[in-house]
Amino acid sequence: MAEILRHDKTARQLRLLSDALDSGRLGPVRRLVNTLSPAEIGNLLESLPPPKRSVVWGLVDPEDDGEVLVHVGEEVREGLIADMDPDELVAAVEDLDIDDLADLAEDLPDTVVDEVLKSMDRENRERLEQVLSYEEDTAGRLMNPDVVTVRTDTTVDVVLRFLRLRGELPEHTDHLYVVSKRHQYLGRIALQALLTHDSNTSVNELMDDEQPAIDVHETSDEVARQFSDHDWISAPVVDDNNILLGRITIDDVVDIIRNQAEHQAMSAAGLDEEEDLFSPVRRAFRRRMLWLTINLGTAFLASSVVGQFQGTIAHLVSLAVLMPIVAGMGGNSGTQVLALMVRGLALGQIGPSNVMTLVWKEVRIAIINGIGIGLLLALIVLLWFHDPMLAFVIALALTINFTAAALGGVFVPVMVKRMGFDPALAGGVILTTITDVMGFLSFLGLATLLLMR
Amino acid sequence: MAEILRHDKTARQLRLLSDALDSGRLGPVRRLVNTLSPAEIGNLLESLPPPKRSVVWGLVDPEDDGEVLVHVGEEVREGLIADMDPDELVAAVEDLDIDDLADLAEDLPDTVVDEVLKSMDRENRERLEQVLSYEEDTAGRLMNPDVVTVRTDTTVDVVLRFLRLRGELPEHTDHLYVVSKRHQYLGRIALQALLTHDSNTSVNELMDDEQPAIDVHETSDEVARQFSDHDWISAPVVDDNNILLGRITIDDVVDIIRNQAEHQAMSAAGLDEEEDLFSPVRRAFRRRMLWLTINLGTAFLASSVVGQFQGTIAHLVSLAVLMPIVAGMGGNSGTQVLALMVRGLALGQIGPSNVMTLVWKEVRIAIINGIGIGLLLALIVLLWFHDPMLAFVIALALTINFTAAALGGVFVPVMVKRMGFDPALAGGVILTTITDVMGFLSFLGLATLLLMR
Repeated sequence: MAEILRHDKTARQLRLLSDALDSGRLGPVRRLVNTLSPAEIGNLLESLPPPKRSVVWGLVDPEDDGEVLVHVGEEVREGLIADMDPDELVAAVEDLDIDDLADLAEDLPDTVVDEVLKSMDRENRERLEQVLSYEEDTAGRLMNPDVVTVRTDTTVDVVLRFLRLRGELPEHTDHLYVVSKRHQYLGRIALQALLTHDSNTSVNELMDDEQPAIDVHETSDEVARQFSDHDWISAPVVDDNNILLGRITIDDVVDIIRNQAEHQAMSAAGLDEEEDLFSPVRRAFRRRMLWLTINLGTAFLASSVVGQFQGTIAHLVSLAVLMPIVAGMGGNSGTQVLALMVRGLALGQIGPSNVMTLVWKEVRIAIINGIGIGLLLALIVLLWFHDPMLAFVIALALTINFTAAALGGVFVPVMVKRMGFDPALAGGVILTTITDVMGFLSFLGLATLLLMR
Repeated sequence: MAEILRHDKTARQLRLLSDALDSGRLGPVRRLVNTLSPAEIGNLLESLPPPKRSVVWGLVDPEDDGEVLVHVGEEVREGLIADMDPDELVAAVEDLDIDDLADLAEDLPDTVVDEVLKSMDRENRERLEQVLSYEEDTAGRLMNPDVVTVRTDTTVDVVLRFLRLRGELPEHTDHLYVVSKRHQYLGRIALQALLTHDSNTSVNELMDDEQPAIDVHETSDEVARQFSDHDWISAPVVDDNNILLGRITIDDVVDIIRNQAEHQAMSAAGLDEEEDLFSPVRRAFRRRMLWLTINLGTAFLASSVVGQFQGTIAHLVSLAVLMPIVAGMGGNSGTQVLALMVRGLALGQIGPSNVMTLVWKEVRIAIINGIGIGLLLALIVLLWFHDPMLAFVIALALTINFTAAALGGVFVPVMVKRMGFDPALAGGVILTTITDVMGFLSFLGLATLLLMR
């Protein structure tokens, strides 16, 4: 086992850290941990079982505490916060950027949030309250209100002097925003442009008014889509009156994209993407229980179909041996269609205009696959059970189930999405129920019709 | 169906476009398409069945052709390239950035690549040849050699004059790189710093030498990890002698992250992430056939276990009714463990130091779930078949299979990764084979021992 992942930097750190922890020498652990970036520390904490996690968390430089909290999953975060006293928490988070602070706020005890608000100057307090007033997973929550604005009736020279006076710019500033007197968004100026143009050029000339601003109520998924469609590094956020409220930067968008991906992968297995790798057994049990109970219900549905054919099975026990193949293969082929559909739906590529073309394509593939795999299956069954009619029945049942899988694979995710649910989460359960039921029904039904004499 | 996804911008464009195409008026289609960014056009093309796709592709502004090709999946790209004659292709791609051109190069006909190389000036030709000399999916392939460098023995004032003379900077330039006489990487200067410091400040003073450079042979996955761990917008790429070769920017990293996510979601269903939603039936059939044949093999393995117990089933047909439940529920619970493990392995969070802790946690959850779900299942079976011993057997078999699922869920992905395969691709097949075999074996085996008198 020691060879696994040797090439992997995080895993290497993990082993070093684990060895140092086991030896009980905390000095080297502290030094190791504090060479890492907050995101790396977060990743490392997530990979430690809770007792070790607490020890290492206590060794992290308090200056990094806030950033580390931003970078871990919700479940791990709750545990880390529970390990800190209110004063430590206030100290850890009060210097965070407004958008990060807003992100953490709902996981912090109310007293800590109040304390942090009190410690802020009026401008920042108002900004934080404004960000928190927008719904979760909207542009308003993602934005940082700290932006550098200039007016249109000025020149590069004036802007340069203003910037030198101002000093440091907010992180990842690649553009200054041009606003009207009423703070309406007019356009943006690239820092590059300021550096490559004559000092007497007017701001108006350099202003790029092509990039649309993001509406503060836009969903974060839509924000991510726009960023990656346009290769933006940052984008302005405005309200309904086009008043500039803040700015979203690519680093937050990268986090959204990562979360979307995790959500899709985890929810296909009925898990929450915030789940801690080491979540307490009791908690994990409760969560998984629900998912397994739903699956138990669908399993009984499929079983009850088999139950209708007990007489047939009693006559011909080989049906019981072969029936899982028909059901399972239908599930496999349906899952392939589902994966294509879930991706297409997530990218907005599927709509009324092309869904029938897709169905037709998938049904044709299903029938060809049914014949191809069906012939192979029939041959094996013939060699095994020496019953040509049984071989014919299983090949036909397989083709029927593949067709059902193709229809289900296309329509189930579309319907699930239409009903407002997540196709990645609910699609798989419904689809495999269909392929199980259809697999048993077609195979045992055809067998009853054709083999029972 | 018309209601689906009305909120979704791409789907809305798709419908407008589809209506316009159906009406045969190509003027509005052309206007609509050319308001979109190349990435949006790419997404739209991917959502069109091939005949419509060809029509729309012909209407795209030739200036955008190259960028659109960069933004579509490989399979769609091949089709679009086949639609163009060599001259069009050369014109489309010759103005692309070096990194984009390198990305396309292997999908282009050799004659087109030669033509493009010939049309370039010597500097760019050498750059492209250099980028192409690195392996796919490494930093060398991702980098853009077009970087702005300054020397250490100079001042802000000189740099500003140099930039004004130079004019436009490469896209997404947020830092200038400081190099030695031998072009070795020394550090970087933020554009921000140039704008906020006095013109007589020395470059040395402003230089940030903290950010490590990326090794040109680093894998693209590792590059993506470093970018998101450190919130970089761009990073320098160096060779073994620390000579600055180029620069990687966040927009390419966003593409890597998206591809990783797609790869994981699609490969779990045995699909290639480059697969076209509308790939020709023959091609899709051949690809899926392989996956289904592998699954057919594992299905027979599970069936052969059932085959060993035909005598038992003939005695008690209710076993055939209930056995898919034990096998299927084991698969569901194993898939949950697998999803957690695949994520953990991808993040480098799992190694020899914590794998046993994980196993122990998952086994405990499995046993508790086995008892909980097992009792529920036993109760239903008791009500259905009025056989207390059968109810006991199914609950015990379920607990055994949950435990097998927990062990398989942890060890299978670790082993698969250790053998150099993709846990997301192969893990699911192996795991469900284990849970099917163990499910049938434990249920039918226990039934033979305890119910056959």
